[in-house]
Amino acid sequence: MTKVTMRPARLMYPRPTLLVGANVDGKANFMAVGGGGVANSDPPMIGVPIQHHRYTLKGILKNMTFSVNIPSADLVTETDYCGIASGAEVDKVQVCRFKVFYGNLNDAPMIEQCPINLECRVVHALNLGSHSFVIGQVEGTYVTESCLTDGKPDVRKIKPLIFDLESAEYLAFGEVVAKAFSIGKKLAARE
Amino acid sequence: MTKVTMRPARLMYPRPTLLVGANVDGKANFMAVGGGGVANSDPPMIGVPIQHHRYTLKGILKNMTFSVNIPSADLVTETDYCGIASGAEVDKVQVCRFKVFYGNLNDAPMIEQCPINLECRVVHALNLGSHSFVIGQVEGTYVTESCLTDGKPDVRKIKPLIFDLESAEYLAFGEVVAKAFSIGKKLAARE
Repeated sequence: MTKVTMRPARLMYPRPTLLVGANVDGKANFMAVGGGGVANSDPPMIGVPIQHHRYTLKGILKNMTFSVNIPSADLVTETDYCGIASGAEVDKVQVCRFKVFYGNLNDAPMIEQCPINLECRVVHALNLGSHSFVIGQVEGTYVTESCLTDGKPDVRKIKPLIFDLESAEYLAFGEVVAKAFSIGKKLAARE
Repeated sequence: MTKVTMRPARLMYPRPTLLVGANVDGKANFMAVGGGGVANSDPPMIGVPIQHHRYTLKGILKNMTFSVNIPSADLVTETDYCGIASGAEVDKVQVCRFKVFYGNLNDAPMIEQCPINLECRVVHALNLGSHSFVIGQVEGTYVTESCLTDGKPDVRKIKPLIFDLESAEYLAFGEVVAKAFSIGKKLAARE
């Protein structure tokens, strides 16, 4: 197995495709984020990297709240648009026809059309270089009812997107490979 | 679109399936991590959540280095085993028959069979509650040659795994949904 040494890179598979929301200058705005993920379990926390100049970051750091919205594949056009346009110049909510709602925090706007919405309170904002890494504690969780099966979020109904930086493509989720905390047990015989 | 309010949760789609490595008590050990992701672009940084009691964390905090190895679907059994067993009790490298190699940092063990290997130096270790969130700067990047196409990592050859916490399943990547920084342009007509 030959290894090729590359320039140090943040190669990560999978990267999520998220719409991060904040109120900025009195209106709701959303940006696409193709990094970050779960930072803690209890209490639940999510971390997202955001470039310092981004319009959304201005609102996040002012309000110390933000939302994480997980778009389904049906929203890929709107999601990509939110990664191209800047809220400083256009009203993305209007262009994308997002229906915005608020939860417990009152100032973290969420997108009704996204199957999963997390409203977060900022607990850390680290300057790591090119990006601020913003870690938020989840204080409200909202799931579209039709995306639940037996009361649990169902990935087949959510249809989330993977962001592949190398090919600049959004990918769907594929088939089940194996059951977790289960298939590995067969190796116990080798212990 | 009816929304169901759930208990605050770190619902994230996709979550990665990573093998995080460190030398502990003089030997290489690897644990499975189903969270975290990219924390910064320049310099490249990855963040991973690790429970405080984990054996691997002991080595990470002692050496202030760790590795992130991305297993392919072919390694799902070994990967799951690394999430079940503890390096305090078994030699996972031996059980999984991992071939271990080292890069620039000398003490961040990597798995040759994994298509992607990142060796990282710890820049932050935050106690967020149940987990330490360890952020590492990538100082070495190694890719299996057969997983490259025209010199770039190719997700179809890497075959990474998605971890779905809700169903406790590992999933494969699926089809291409759309081209990024492209499909959204059609909404500019609505501005």
